[in-house]
Amino acid sequence: MNELDADTLATAYRAVRSHTEALAAPLSAEDACAQSMPDASPAKWHLAHTTWFFETFVLERFEPGFAPHAAAYRVLFNSYYNAVGVKHPRPQRGLLTRPSLDEVRAYRAAVDRRVLTLMPRLPQEALRLVELGLHHEQQHQELLLTDVLHLFSCNPLKPAYREAEMSASAPASPLQWHAFEEGVVQIGHDGAGFAFDNEGPRHSAYLQRYEVASRLVSNAEYAGFIEAGGYREPALWLSEGWDWVKAQSREHPLYWQRAANGWQAFGLSGLRELQAHEPVLHLSYYEADAYARWAGARLPTEAEWEHAAATCPELHQLTSHAWQWTSSAYLPYPDFRASAGAVGEYNGKFMVNQMVLRGGSLATPPTHLRTSYRNFFPTSATWQFTGIRLAR
Amino acid sequence: MNELDADTLATAYRAVRSHTEALAAPLSAEDACAQSMPDASPAKWHLAHTTWFFETFVLERFEPGFAPHAAAYRVLFNSYYNAVGVKHPRPQRGLLTRPSLDEVRAYRAAVDRRVLTLMPRLPQEALRLVELGLHHEQQHQELLLTDVLHLFSCNPLKPAYREAEMSASAPASPLQWHAFEEGVVQIGHDGAGFAFDNEGPRHSAYLQRYEVASRLVSNAEYAGFIEAGGYREPALWLSEGWDWVKAQSREHPLYWQRAANGWQAFGLSGLRELQAHEPVLHLSYYEADAYARWAGARLPTEAEWEHAAATCPELHQLTSHAWQWTSSAYLPYPDFRASAGAVGEYNGKFMVNQMVLRGGSLATPPTHLRTSYRNFFPTSATWQFTGIRLAR
Amino acid sequence: MNELDADTLATAYRAVRSHTEALAAPLSAEDACAQSMPDASPAKWHLAHTTWFFETFVLERFEPGFAPHAAAYRVLFNSYYNAVGVKHPRPQRGLLTRPSLDEVRAYRAAVDRRVLTLMPRLPQEALRLVELGLHHEQQHQELLLTDVLHLFSCNPLKPAYREAEMSASAPASPLQWHAFEEGVVQIGHDGAGFAFDNEGPRHSAYLQRYEVASRLVSNAEYAGFIEAGGYREPALWLSEGWDWVKAQSREHPLYWQRAANGWQAFGLSGLRELQAHEPVLHLSYYEADAYARWAGARLPTEAEWEHAAATCPELHQLTSHAWQWTSSAYLPYPDFRASAGAVGEYNGKFMVNQMVLRGGSLATPPTHLRTSYRNFFPTSATWQFTGIRLAR
Amino acid sequence: MNELDADTLATAYRAVRSHTEALAAPLSAEDACAQSMPDASPAKWHLAHTTWFFETFVLERFEPGFAPHAAAYRVLFNSYYNAVGVKHPRPQRGLLTRPSLDEVRAYRAAVDRRVLTLMPRLPQEALRLVELGLHHEQQHQELLLTDVLHLFSCNPLKPAYREAEMSASAPASPLQWHAFEEGVVQIGHDGAGFAFDNEGPRHSAYLQRYEVASRLVSNAEYAGFIEAGGYREPALWLSEGWDWVKAQSREHPLYWQRAANGWQAFGLSGLRELQAHEPVLHLSYYEADAYARWAGARLPTEAEWEHAAATCPELHQLTSHAWQWTSSAYLPYPDFRASAGAVGEYNGKFMVNQMVLRGGSLATPPTHLRTSYRNFFPTSATWQFTGIRLAR
Repeated sequence: MNELDADTLATAYRAVRSHTEALAAPLSAEDACAQSMPDASPAKWHLAHTTWFFETFVLERFEPGFAPHAAAYRVLFNSYYNAVGVKHPRPQRGLLTRPSLDEVRAYRAAVDRRVLTLMPRLPQEALRLVELGLHHEQQHQELLLTDVLHLFSCNPLKPAYREAEMSASAPASPLQWHAFEEGVVQIGHDGAGFAFDNEGPRHSAYLQRYEVASRLVSNAEYAGFIEAGGYREPALWLSEGWDWVKAQSREHPLYWQRAANGWQAFGLSGLRELQAHEPVLHLSYYEADAYARWAGARLPTEAEWEHAAATCPELHQLTSHAWQWTSSAYLPYPDFRASAGAVGEYNGKFMVNQMVLRGGSLATPPTHLRTSYRNFFPTSATWQFTGIRLAR
Repeated sequence: MNELDADTLATAYRAVRSHTEALAAPLSAEDACAQSMPDASPAKWHLAHTTWFFETFVLERFEPGFAPHAAAYRVLFNSYYNAVGVKHPRPQRGLLTRPSLDEVRAYRAAVDRRVLTLMPRLPQEALRLVELGLHHEQQHQELLLTDVLHLFSCNPLKPAYREAEMSASAPASPLQWHAFEEGVVQIGHDGAGFAFDNEGPRHSAYLQRYEVASRLVSNAEYAGFIEAGGYREPALWLSEGWDWVKAQSREHPLYWQRAANGWQAFGLSGLRELQAHEPVLHLSYYEADAYARWAGARLPTEAEWEHAAATCPELHQLTSHAWQWTSSAYLPYPDFRASAGAVGEYNGKFMVNQMVLRGGSLATPPTHLRTSYRNFFPTSATWQFTGIRLAR
Repeated sequence: MNELDADTLATAYRAVRSHTEALAAPLSAEDACAQSMPDASPAKWHLAHTTWFFETFVLERFEPGFAPHAAAYRVLFNSYYNAVGVKHPRPQRGLLTRPSLDEVRAYRAAVDRRVLTLMPRLPQEALRLVELGLHHEQQHQELLLTDVLHLFSCNPLKPAYREAEMSASAPASPLQWHAFEEGVVQIGHDGAGFAFDNEGPRHSAYLQRYEVASRLVSNAEYAGFIEAGGYREPALWLSEGWDWVKAQSREHPLYWQRAANGWQAFGLSGLRELQAHEPVLHLSYYEADAYARWAGARLPTEAEWEHAAATCPELHQLTSHAWQWTSSAYLPYPDFRASAGAVGEYNGKFMVNQMVLRGGSLATPPTHLRTSYRNFFPTSATWQFTGIRLAR
Repeated sequence: MNELDADTLATAYRAVRSHTEALAAPLSAEDACAQSMPDASPAKWHLAHTTWFFETFVLERFEPGFAPHAAAYRVLFNSYYNAVGVKHPRPQRGLLTRPSLDEVRAYRAAVDRRVLTLMPRLPQEALRLVELGLHHEQQHQELLLTDVLHLFSCNPLKPAYREAEMSASAPASPLQWHAFEEGVVQIGHDGAGFAFDNEGPRHSAYLQRYEVASRLVSNAEYAGFIEAGGYREPALWLSEGWDWVKAQSREHPLYWQRAANGWQAFGLSGLRELQAHEPVLHLSYYEADAYARWAGARLPTEAEWEHAAATCPELHQLTSHAWQWTSSAYLPYPDFRASAGAVGEYNGKFMVNQMVLRGGSLATPPTHLRTSYRNFFPTSATWQFTGIRLAR
């Protein structure tokens, strides 16, 4: 493990922290306070919780004469760290109209000053926690966007978070299959640079011969699945997926709606005509699995995905559009050990009843991406930027 | 029915409308947007819905060349008027971060200008709708306070809506009983001045001899019920009330909590020591009924309450502190006819599975009070300012 | 209150107890064990609970050297008497495959022997409890039938409880209105013979002029309401009723279904063609109220119903077909006092959020009927034999 | 794949079918009809559904002039085969008091006669379906026992399904660890004899060095976990597991209860003193995982388990007491293909959000066991005979 440099880290700290504020800048105080479902959090909470992380794991342990910025925030902005004490109930985060957005911004500024002041004197152990906190904050940057998108989708006014980008949306390239030979491969983070604990240890895995698609499934291809009756044919679905389709009356992806002249999709730029050639987004694992079955293919395992991504430069859209559902359950790698202390609650304790997603999305900060990265969500999650890369 | 005068009504209009804004003044945009439970509404929604009422029932019908202030508001701020079309789902009112509080204030100002401009030319029928709209708005003034109080109670910071008033809280007067003779009495609104349709027709009712308490039950008296084990003795409770106590683990009124040195209660002035001599507040019908049974008394019927209030000047605290649960279900008076049109959905369609409350509370605008007034809530409601006047 | 004679009571005891067994005779052990919903109870449970009543309230108190038939039955077959101790959870009554139906029959026989042996030596107070137990058992006779009907309705085989009777179903007589003058009337049981505590005290009530229909609403008339779109028009429904219609997707009465050639209805004789001229059955309060509004009428109050039934011999179908929803909430009469002790839990504690039904149904034992009888159910109950008599 | 012999299969058919009836013999008609939770089925339903399988997949396809035994059974006793048409709702299986237990036994006898008559003339394809039906029935034999046990556990009488066996319960042997070297191993069914489709294809897998415990965790060892506060320490649990513990107020395994002199456990022989040296039973995946973490170990993967079981004769209690939770999610093996047609719905469509269990239990028919057998249940399931074999 390479030594961390305090100056370099301070630069990264300023960049990540200010990027979070830039993401929140288009939001009004009201936008930043509301919570549209228990799975999502208010933007204000993301702003505060990421700050709480630095205050709790860095300042409290390493700042001489530490005093909390505001004692009550310790409870209000803890997320799931049981070892750190009581938590505010997750479904009630939208009721925290106080502290105000301005007070939370002041909290951020105050903690930033203290962390940056302290940084030159921090030992390596503390710098590692700062680094972890920055990667943690980048995760919340993506969640801030997915959660705002969901909130805005609930508003009949269908507000846009940002202007539509001028995407010279070229036709999707023809889908090609890339083949990989059977054998033992190495999987997991190799130790150079930062990685979450769940990406290691690096280990051998045996792969059968397989093929992976060169790009993601497009909106037009997914629309074909819908038109072919995909949402009405139980044989295409996992049993639990079929129950989900019926219970939720699903007939299309989360943010799609039919208009007079075709499909529309709601996104960060508001409600727009569906872009046929762009990758389909916001699918549950059930939908991804059913589509793959309909297409005569399957989802890749995470080992297949990682080996292909690491060795095949011809694969496109690896991290540019959507996290890609794999057929692998989110479980510990052989000899996995969670980090010690409260930060050890970060990953390991969620290793059940979730599926691994690989790659990265349009909302993922580019410096947050790694081939070994293991994202994970429950099978019914659709509000993330999730899509399909086929295998066979 | 007396003729309405446009000038007088315009004065009342200005007073009521500005009072609503004064009530919302202490709230931040975030405070005004959040919804703490499906039964409550955001303050911003109250501000907008009361305006929607004037726009829909007055401007749309009587303003030449009417155009809506914003077409989408028609759906967003409709409450329960099926005849007026689609409604935004009630439990999602807190997700309406747009329009902003400022935009809603502009909506209010624009509608006020239009209504006041139109007022001198309005026919009696329209003036009656304006008058109804003002009484409707006064109801929402009280709800705005009860809903904000509930929202703030969910925040661990326990914010205060306003400064504590200097209440020279005198000891509660000794409770006295006032007796009323058996016989036929007249009940219901007598037609002079405004009344809701549910307060009439005035009609004869037969009352047996009864007695009514001179004041409300005090916090100290209710604390005695708790200390005597009132919440643990099923024989004191209606069967459904006992189920409610157990399902909700209730052991005291909604906003009470035990502190080291006794009871505290949360109110509009924040968390304070319980005032022993003030009337107990925030009780469900089940609690009021159980207390009365424990005290060897009962709740009055609404006819008993109205006859007593109308004829006995010795009764105190009739409207100053809490709505008083009666033992009468909320049902139509003999020969009740709902008003015609959409405003006829105002009262009649709620006449099932609710109980009548009489009097008025600390949050009721004084010009909104009448002896014949019939307030009503489900038996489990506790977030209103509700209390107990005993009868026997 | 007249003196009870032990011999006469013993004769009644034998008659009522054997009638219960006759009602259960067509049922297999499996039929008698299953519970189709929390509101319903297994027939075996009815057989046992009615026996538990005599064992607990008569034998345990008055039999020298009393020992329970089986100690566990004390918990298993208690229904809602908190004063008697722990209860088996109501929704799990269908899981009591032990004791067997044969064991419950043996329980009945043993308690019958002991009660009849004891009867000649019982004091008046005990004889009153026996009399109460018989009326209690008659209530369960009706419930046994309604609960079996619901159970059988859940079975795709649609089994019939009994052969269809040869009803020479004459055309419904023309509906006539009978008028009653305004004034003070006497309501409630007059003290001659048995009555439940909730039927008294007899007291004065003031009635406005009103009219009552000569017969119940027929299936054909109710079908007219359906065909006219009654289930799709919110203006006809109470707000809570409209929510119920939508949440339950109701489009017709509980046991109706459309067949190729018209309506069919499921009843104790199985699935049969709807009898147009017979009274409509199995309506909720919401449906009864909506039908009345559609028909330009209303439901009678319970005082109106009782006064009409007591004074007008021209009223038909008072007790022969269906309990008739009134517009009166189930509340205590003036000066009501519940009976002392555990049997005081019989009626009073249910006096909230239920509506009164008057009359009697095809499933009510004839000796159980009284003009002052107050039946009561929640507004959403449809599995009872409930119908409509209009007033205006 | 070896050829099936009709005579040998007929012998197996008679043995399996009569064993099912022997398992149901101690049950009354009531016992056989009740359903204690949606996950469980009535014994009568197991008797009928296993028969439906032969009627639908063998007789209907291969019997000349096939007519169903009873048309309605096609719906009533279908379980989850969407391709075969409508299904009776699973949670309502306990309401099928008709057909009676005797009628279901007659159904079994009639289908048995027809299958056995037909057997000598059946082609290999049909014999394979008969063989599949027998293995299917053996699965239901185990479920019949677990479901009856759950039903009886809900009855305060705590009935015993059978006499207690005279178990000369020797002290648990000292737990020993058996080590296995790193490398590529072969996993999955090798094709000799019957296997479910999910056990193949056989394929290579890479295993890191690991150790497996020689026996299962005992009741005494698990009691130690409880006494050490295992159910109160969130750090030991998966996040979802900790939510489960709190939501269900779990403090011990499903059928344990504290008595004056120690733990009691409910089982097929009724409520008995806990046998300290026997393997602990009825654990959820969450409990198994938490125990392993507390013990400084982990659960084996299914590949580890299978390789160990296939190669190490020193492992005890592989199939004699409890299915053993593995840390592997239930997912398809590489190149898995579900069987064609409706029987293809057997396994594959359940491959999500379940964990694999390996081995076999006291309730598993011995002829049903295979080293490659993949049992699977959701992580919260506790009513099966499930236990723990540690790995590290």
